[in-house]
Amino acid sequence: MRYLVEANASGHEVSYGDDTWTQRVCDGIRQLFDTDCEVFFVFNGTAANSLALASLSQSYHSVICHELAHVETDECGGPEFFSNGAKLLTARGRDNNGKLTPEAVEAVINRRSDIHFPKPKVVTLTQATEVGTVYTVDEIKAISAVAKRRNLRVHMDGARFANAVATLGCHPGDVTWRAGVDVLCFGGTKNGLPVGEAVVFFNRALAEDFAYRVKQAGQLASKMRFISAPWLGMLENDTWLRHARHANDMAQLLAARIRDVPGVSIMFETQANGVFAELPAFVIEALRARGWRFYTFIGAGGCRFMCAWDTRVETVERLAADIRELSAQAAVA
Amino acid sequence: MRYLVEANASGHEVSYGDDTWTQRVCDGIRQLFDTDCEVFFVFNGTAANSLALASLSQSYHSVICHELAHVETDECGGPEFFSNGAKLLTARGRDNNGKLTPEAVEAVINRRSDIHFPKPKVVTLTQATEVGTVYTVDEIKAISAVAKRRNLRVHMDGARFANAVATLGCHPGDVTWRAGVDVLCFGGTKNGLPVGEAVVFFNRALAEDFAYRVKQAGQLASKMRFISAPWLGMLENDTWLRHARHANDMAQLLAARIRDVPGVSIMFETQANGVFAELPAFVIEALRARGWRFYTFIGAGGCRFMCAWDTRVETVERLAADIRELSAQAAVA
Amino acid sequence: MRYLVEANASGHEVSYGDDTWTQRVCDGIRQLFDTDCEVFFVFNGTAANSLALASLSQSYHSVICHELAHVETDECGGPEFFSNGAKLLTARGRDNNGKLTPEAVEAVINRRSDIHFPKPKVVTLTQATEVGTVYTVDEIKAISAVAKRRNLRVHMDGARFANAVATLGCHPGDVTWRAGVDVLCFGGTKNGLPVGEAVVFFNRALAEDFAYRVKQAGQLASKMRFISAPWLGMLENDTWLRHARHANDMAQLLAARIRDVPGVSIMFETQANGVFAELPAFVIEALRARGWRFYTFIGAGGCRFMCAWDTRVETVERLAADIRELSAQAAVA
Amino acid sequence: MRYLVEANASGHEVSYGDDTWTQRVCDGIRQLFDTDCEVFFVFNGTAANSLALASLSQSYHSVICHELAHVETDECGGPEFFSNGAKLLTARGRDNNGKLTPEAVEAVINRRSDIHFPKPKVVTLTQATEVGTVYTVDEIKAISAVAKRRNLRVHMDGARFANAVATLGCHPGDVTWRAGVDVLCFGGTKNGLPVGEAVVFFNRALAEDFAYRVKQAGQLASKMRFISAPWLGMLENDTWLRHARHANDMAQLLAARIRDVPGVSIMFETQANGVFAELPAFVIEALRARGWRFYTFIGAGGCRFMCAWDTRVETVERLAADIRELSAQAAVA
Repeated sequence: MRYLVEANASGHEVSYGDDTWTQRVCDGIRQLFDTDCEVFFVFNGTAANSLALASLSQSYHSVICHELAHVETDECGGPEFFSNGAKLLTARGRDNNGKLTPEAVEAVINRRSDIHFPKPKVVTLTQATEVGTVYTVDEIKAISAVAKRRNLRVHMDGARFANAVATLGCHPGDVTWRAGVDVLCFGGTKNGLPVGEAVVFFNRALAEDFAYRVKQAGQLASKMRFISAPWLGMLENDTWLRHARHANDMAQLLAARIRDVPGVSIMFETQANGVFAELPAFVIEALRARGWRFYTFIGAGGCRFMCAWDTRVETVERLAADIRELSAQAAVA
Repeated sequence: MRYLVEANASGHEVSYGDDTWTQRVCDGIRQLFDTDCEVFFVFNGTAANSLALASLSQSYHSVICHELAHVETDECGGPEFFSNGAKLLTARGRDNNGKLTPEAVEAVINRRSDIHFPKPKVVTLTQATEVGTVYTVDEIKAISAVAKRRNLRVHMDGARFANAVATLGCHPGDVTWRAGVDVLCFGGTKNGLPVGEAVVFFNRALAEDFAYRVKQAGQLASKMRFISAPWLGMLENDTWLRHARHANDMAQLLAARIRDVPGVSIMFETQANGVFAELPAFVIEALRARGWRFYTFIGAGGCRFMCAWDTRVETVERLAADIRELSAQAAVA
Repeated sequence: MRYLVEANASGHEVSYGDDTWTQRVCDGIRQLFDTDCEVFFVFNGTAANSLALASLSQSYHSVICHELAHVETDECGGPEFFSNGAKLLTARGRDNNGKLTPEAVEAVINRRSDIHFPKPKVVTLTQATEVGTVYTVDEIKAISAVAKRRNLRVHMDGARFANAVATLGCHPGDVTWRAGVDVLCFGGTKNGLPVGEAVVFFNRALAEDFAYRVKQAGQLASKMRFISAPWLGMLENDTWLRHARHANDMAQLLAARIRDVPGVSIMFETQANGVFAELPAFVIEALRARGWRFYTFIGAGGCRFMCAWDTRVETVERLAADIRELSAQAAVA
Repeated sequence: MRYLVEANASGHEVSYGDDTWTQRVCDGIRQLFDTDCEVFFVFNGTAANSLALASLSQSYHSVICHELAHVETDECGGPEFFSNGAKLLTARGRDNNGKLTPEAVEAVINRRSDIHFPKPKVVTLTQATEVGTVYTVDEIKAISAVAKRRNLRVHMDGARFANAVATLGCHPGDVTWRAGVDVLCFGGTKNGLPVGEAVVFFNRALAEDFAYRVKQAGQLASKMRFISAPWLGMLENDTWLRHARHANDMAQLLAARIRDVPGVSIMFETQANGVFAELPAFVIEALRARGWRFYTFIGAGGCRFMCAWDTRVETVERLAADIRELSAQAAVA
């Protein structure tokens, strides 16, 4: 918050992204990725993903994604809207820890090759995935290789990119442009910022006129410094990575605490900041009665516990204790 | 063809649909359905379905269809494009002879009810279906009942509507507006016309400004009589129904002739003008070598044999004989 | 800013607009307008106007606006994009103090009535206008009367609505729904907020499913309280009106100070927070050299001096003194 | 008509444009223009222009056209719809015989250069123009030069291209690709065909995936031979040019016959197949009472008399005689 108040106090800056705060944060992101990428800011993740995908495809193209991808399940058709009709083609299968595979992507590409069906043009990866798992650098390279061979572009939904980098311990460039990613949507809000996601074009040719697209889409902040200034604070001293590491650690702690609780079954490997577990229906209900808030999403039983940059150890311990206590009650009943 | 040449000869008519030919064919369709519907003509089935669906939904809505529906599989994202992003939600399952059920429709509606996913607004039925089966009047009424209860509109893709009516032997109104259908796309090209499909709004309120939509979409013929005149010929003396009956009969003949051929398995009931059969790979190849043209579409083995209004008995007999002969060869090999 | 920090501190609220802050601010706006309107928040003015207009029109409709309207000149085709192609029809003439007249609106409606041109469906008013003038309640009523008679809807771009109300001294309801306005885009950012505009539907039927539209358009803040909380502060104790009054007063002060400066000509009546003046080219250049920032927009000479809620008397006096001094130098030269 | 009937008779061809008729007509057009262009067929002029412009621009771009261009005035926002919002910027002025000039184009480009307004990306020329005049080869080259220098693409609306070529007497390639035109919409319907326009991409890179665009837009004829076969007949023995020459001759005849009639004033040079004349209101009314049909479009008095490929000398003479007779009556009254 400190940076935001400072920006507010610094007088009437030139608006619409030409201010010095925005220049500094763009330069910061270029340094972070160690490449001369093009950087744009939009208000949220739906806009970031939708505008990026629209810049990679036309209305008669298709975008290959995992069936659990946020672009498919939680953006209310935003990608279809901004691209004026591009179709999302989902690769099925919740195996492989919620990650696409080169084979799955190629199978979708091969389904059709006639003009009566949209032509595949983009593959989108979610890093970390919606089920809290993380693509390795090699996994991304393998998918990019298929994409390049078949003339598709590679988009990365990085709403939780920070958590993935924290897990992998690699350079941010290694898991993006050096692995063949054309465009990254780099999440700010899931990392502590009030609003604002960065759209990072490593393939600069694809960024042509993107500023116009942002403006037309109602995603250009007139008081841009309110978005860029907090980003500066986040980049400074690797705060983004520290935040992400903390959230990941809290997820590890939670997973460790509940892994051996009878009746609890962890559904996916805990590789980022979320724990996905099946709990008895009684436990779910009772946890909610105690005030815990979480999504249940894959049929009955699947609970999503997300840890944030500011989740405290005590909170995790209390949640784990509640799960343990309520599960014991459920076992008796 | 006769009517087309006559229209051409009749001098410079007022263009763009205000001509007498168009008035006559619209009136003819109103008589046919026995209701004061609104009628528009467009060039082909993709346009008819896409514009009709766009008039029933907004970009943030969804359209429920069968997973084999033409709008999903063969219109290159036309419905998504014309609606500016509406999402098609497919009801799975190829059981029930390729037809939607009230339960399947309701299950899709119930999947989600939050604003992070497009809101169901339309259910679309294909009559006859893509696999050559036909909804009964009661089946359509049951689906319409779900739709009305859940505030959805009902669209019917009637590219092969004539074949369905021929099969059902009912009044065209019984299987459309009296059964709850709001809009019908009534196929002309599959029934012998060079170009042109009719969009028939039984729910007249939904047709508001539809003429503007047609014009903007590049679907208004400047020489409208070239589309409407052939329709007149088709409506005259129930030619459309006679054509359809003939095509259906040919499909029945083909089915009867190959049903008991060893190695041949008919996949769906033959209720309209198509026969869907699994044949040995050798037979498929050999048939094509002999010049037969047909689609194979559901994995290996599924062949689609469509009969047209002008398919001859001899042709069907020859095809059946070839299938029988080649299947015998396949059995020996 | 106080409210924003408080919201940040109040723990993990339910996100996406279901939080108590958002409920409070919506209720506040209903109280303010003294009617049960529907209220939505989006990130900026382009989004507010574009989404509102899209909800009032289809792609084959047209929107009548003043040729200087922000939707026409400064939103990079946002209204066209979100409506999927609706055409803006501009009423010409910079006379009448930059305001539409009933006659001008009706003349645009009457230009065409065939389906080869988009059908007028909306009239949009900017209150206060782009040239710092204000529609009276009667002027708005007269335009609404034309709109209702011709079956058009009425949209108000209220980026500077607060300044207009401060000038008119009327109840906010008098100049909106009681005068026939269907939808108001109520500006927050021009009134001191970091991000966020309210879309206020007085005609509630037109708001159907608008929440889905907002979500799909990437305009739903996941941390909604960061938008709604500052609004609360603005509504409290009529801060919005006090801010606007101050800005208006500063514009009056500036106009008064420079009105009689030789070489300076005030172009439009100063009725809101902007002063539009023609200055000698030398003065414009010299002002900029001294660090003053302002737009020049209508050909050579027209300068726009906008006063904000936090513009200080000293600043205005200094600007006026500089204009006076430099104009004197210009006169000598 | 002969070719159409022949195509109908030739049995069940492979549909959707892969038939031999379509191959022949595409090759014919390549020969005609003496270059390896990409050729597509759509149903009408609105579709041809709109899809071509959509392939040249994105939603945040603008298209520069003459204020009388058909794309601006008579396609119901088709270009805006298919491009998902691109803005048409009109170059004003009905001087210069209804033709754009390099200066007018450049002036529109220079109006704005910020991201708050759509970026000019295309210039579109109508050849022959809406007022019956014709661009010379040098005029087109000069506009193309501006376009190339400013990074715009050049589109030609050639609904009456044949008439222009007939007037210029040049090779069709000279006035298109050799003069810098990227895409031509080559009119068929205005030249005698029932339906169908050709979209000819001289810049083949811009045609990438255009077949998908045509299919998605509902512009792919399933019975493609009904469109392509008549084109063959039109290309054969330069029928298209002979038709156009005849129509032009009829316009010249009409102009010659009425030029000196008192009270009649010819408004634009008669260079193609249309005569634009101001007539007394009495004459207009009386002509219509006698059954003549024509548009009046530029305020009171401007009448458009279009001659077609099949307009007869007698008809022209009778029209001229009526104008002469009625004008004499008007002079007396």
